[in-house]
Amino acid sequence: MDFDRLFQAQLDDLKAEGNYRIFADLERKRDAFPRVTRHGGDGPSEVTVWCSNDYLGMGQHPDVVRAMVETAEICGAGAGGTRNISGTNHHHLLLEEELADLHGKEQALLFSSGYVSNWAALSTLGARLLNAVILSDALNHASMIEGIRHSRAGKVIWRHNDPEDLDRKLAALPADATPIVAFESVYSMDGDIAPIAEIVEVAERHGAMTYIDEVHAVGMYGPRGGGVAEELGLMDRITLIEGTLGKAFGCFGGYITGSAALCDFIRSFASGFIFTTALPPAVAAAARASIRHLKTSDVERRSQKIQVEKLRARLDTLGIPHLPNPSHIIPVMIKDPVKCRQISDILMDAWGVYVQPINYPTVPKGTERLRLTPGPLHSDDDIEHLATALNALWRQCALARQVA
Amino acid sequence: MDFDRLFQAQLDDLKAEGNYRIFADLERKRDAFPRVTRHGGDGPSEVTVWCSNDYLGMGQHPDVVRAMVETAEICGAGAGGTRNISGTNHHHLLLEEELADLHGKEQALLFSSGYVSNWAALSTLGARLLNAVILSDALNHASMIEGIRHSRAGKVIWRHNDPEDLDRKLAALPADATPIVAFESVYSMDGDIAPIAEIVEVAERHGAMTYIDEVHAVGMYGPRGGGVAEELGLMDRITLIEGTLGKAFGCFGGYITGSAALCDFIRSFASGFIFTTALPPAVAAAARASIRHLKTSDVERRSQKIQVEKLRARLDTLGIPHLPNPSHIIPVMIKDPVKCRQISDILMDAWGVYVQPINYPTVPKGTERLRLTPGPLHSDDDIEHLATALNALWRQCALARQVA
Ligand SMILES: Cc1ncc(COP(=O)(O)O)c(C=O)c1O
Ligand SMILES: Cc1ncc(COP(=O)(O)O)c(C=O)c1O
Repeated sequence: MDFDRLFQAQLDDLKAEGNYRIFADLERKRDAFPRVTRHGGDGPSEVTVWCSNDYLGMGQHPDVVRAMVETAEICGAGAGGTRNISGTNHHHLLLEEELADLHGKEQALLFSSGYVSNWAALSTLGARLLNAVILSDALNHASMIEGIRHSRAGKVIWRHNDPEDLDRKLAALPADATPIVAFESVYSMDGDIAPIAEIVEVAERHGAMTYIDEVHAVGMYGPRGGGVAEELGLMDRITLIEGTLGKAFGCFGGYITGSAALCDFIRSFASGFIFTTALPPAVAAAARASIRHLKTSDVERRSQKIQVEKLRARLDTLGIPHLPNPSHIIPVMIKDPVKCRQISDILMDAWGVYVQPINYPTVPKGTERLRLTPGPLHSDDDIEHLATALNALWRQCALARQVA
Repeated sequence: MDFDRLFQAQLDDLKAEGNYRIFADLERKRDAFPRVTRHGGDGPSEVTVWCSNDYLGMGQHPDVVRAMVETAEICGAGAGGTRNISGTNHHHLLLEEELADLHGKEQALLFSSGYVSNWAALSTLGARLLNAVILSDALNHASMIEGIRHSRAGKVIWRHNDPEDLDRKLAALPADATPIVAFESVYSMDGDIAPIAEIVEVAERHGAMTYIDEVHAVGMYGPRGGGVAEELGLMDRITLIEGTLGKAFGCFGGYITGSAALCDFIRSFASGFIFTTALPPAVAAAARASIRHLKTSDVERRSQKIQVEKLRARLDTLGIPHLPNPSHIIPVMIKDPVKCRQISDILMDAWGVYVQPINYPTVPKGTERLRLTPGPLHSDDDIEHLATALNALWRQCALARQVA
């Protein structure tokens, strides 16, 4: 059978739709970030990254890099095994303690990534709790959706950020159901934030477990970077808090936190936790350094907020339409995959500005966008340069403006 | 609802069965490996690891550690995004080229782990190819099983390492099926090796795709460490070769290799590839250094084979029963989870020998074992010490001997 022909046919469809993805080939340079070297057809050039999820630039922080380097020099590169079979390193345990403390929980459990933590935790909870029904926000991340699907538990979708709809759906469950309410705090593509207090209240009223993904909030919200639930004083009312070490913490890996019994349960039964090599000790040490720094330092969070507000204000002045939201994410809507890619290409080639076009399946078709993530390392000049570039492009392509 | 009670009940069952897992808390030290510091109840002590999957000690290799340290110093800690959204780093592309070259394939694709590569690749192939049927060896790894299950494709299990059974099962498929034969080369718990040539022949006869997991073979078999398929000159007849960077390569991460169309297909459609932060550039650079080293250096592979044979010979002399197999893995069968844990505890506490007991669900109940993995960094004295310890334990516990 000619398998390549089968693969190619589906790739051709993707190309015809404008949804074929081309990855930018970048080389990060520590002290230069958000400036990076881009390897392109015409050789290397310097560009400014405006779409990184290293939201606070912690991947470059001296403490973080030092922890990674020193631990690699002492412990070597890999962990050498699964957590059970020789792979548990003291640095994993220290990091788990740090995470439990961050979220005010009894324990934490590390995974290869945020994706794996969602997938493994939800599929294990859904599969092993009797009559589990997972009530999933309509805009939950792929990793949660796949975990729920994999669990083969009952699944009920509730309207995005709508506690009343959740309430109705919880009320409609059979009496013997074990309900698990799964949602995010900051939704990464629209940048909106869930009404966590209301959701928790509804869940408590129905005796449901709560599962929150704070992937786009940890490090950035709350006095110690514990996320939106910390900011609102709600961490102790949420059963399981999930997060990543790969975004604001600037490293790699994922985790859950919760009661000792919950973490031990996932540790003991989740295939995606058990059957895989543990994170490199150096990565664990770097993540811990980042978390520790952000527990006490507020300067990164404060300057991020300032730069976000500055860019928003500039876009408003120029009438460049962006989704309003209370978070650090600025989505500039283009609503066409081909146009979105073209604008991104011009920004890169003519302006040295790198913003990846966001298309299907990351966002629904017809909602293609540029997703801007200003951080503390973007200077005022960077913001001005980006605003100038967008303004020129809006003129050049006769894109719609929005009057404030 | 008291969720902790639900979790605890299932944990109690696990404890009653003897299958509750306790992780050893280790601290690897670069130049000392396989000697590590173990943090235990009585404070830290030095133990020798006999169950690592850092089979060749490459996690400690100066070239590998140097690549990790230098890249962290230049690029920082994390990649800062998914592969599509600012996370592709030049080091990822260099590593993918290295891997494609290793297996003689057009392209390679990196994943967070070997687990994720199996899960994502098989679930995507099974879900997106019309009438896909995955023919899965009965002893395939959890990550493959979960990927197949997730795909919801047809699934047919064939008898472990039995090409004739595979042949019958392929012949029985409906004419319009798209068959995918999924198997491993070295099976990690028994250490047996698949009859790859026969399997490939059967698959070719039926026009089936072949998918091989070489996780426990890459780095160690074949003249350049390309795995058992390289050793047998069969790489070009296998559609997809999957591997890990976390075992013999001593780092972290997973991959697939195959045709350009195949890799592009998985890259474009696999949720587990798309929606997750890319590996740290420093980890990619370290893995590449390891692969490059093992492409030309044979000394690690040769001394591993020698130490494996020495340990086997010593066990035979002492009548300590172990599963015969042609690989580097020496399973010493105990067949009882409680006894297996006890022996492991005595080895650790009285002899400074660390061999994790292997129990359910990693192996079927009743086949609990100690799984020994001698490597080039185990000295002859280490082997002698281990043999002495096992001999004393066999006497002490009146365990059955086997006369050669
Ligand atoms: C909401 C959400 N959850 C989980 C993840 C996965 O986290 P990680 O990148 O660590 O795999 C992501 C993005 O990658 C995300 O956006
Ligand atoms: C056969 C097999 N495939 C895949 C994996 C997963 O690889 P990784 O540890 O890189 O996730 C393992 C073990 O961990 C394995 O034994």
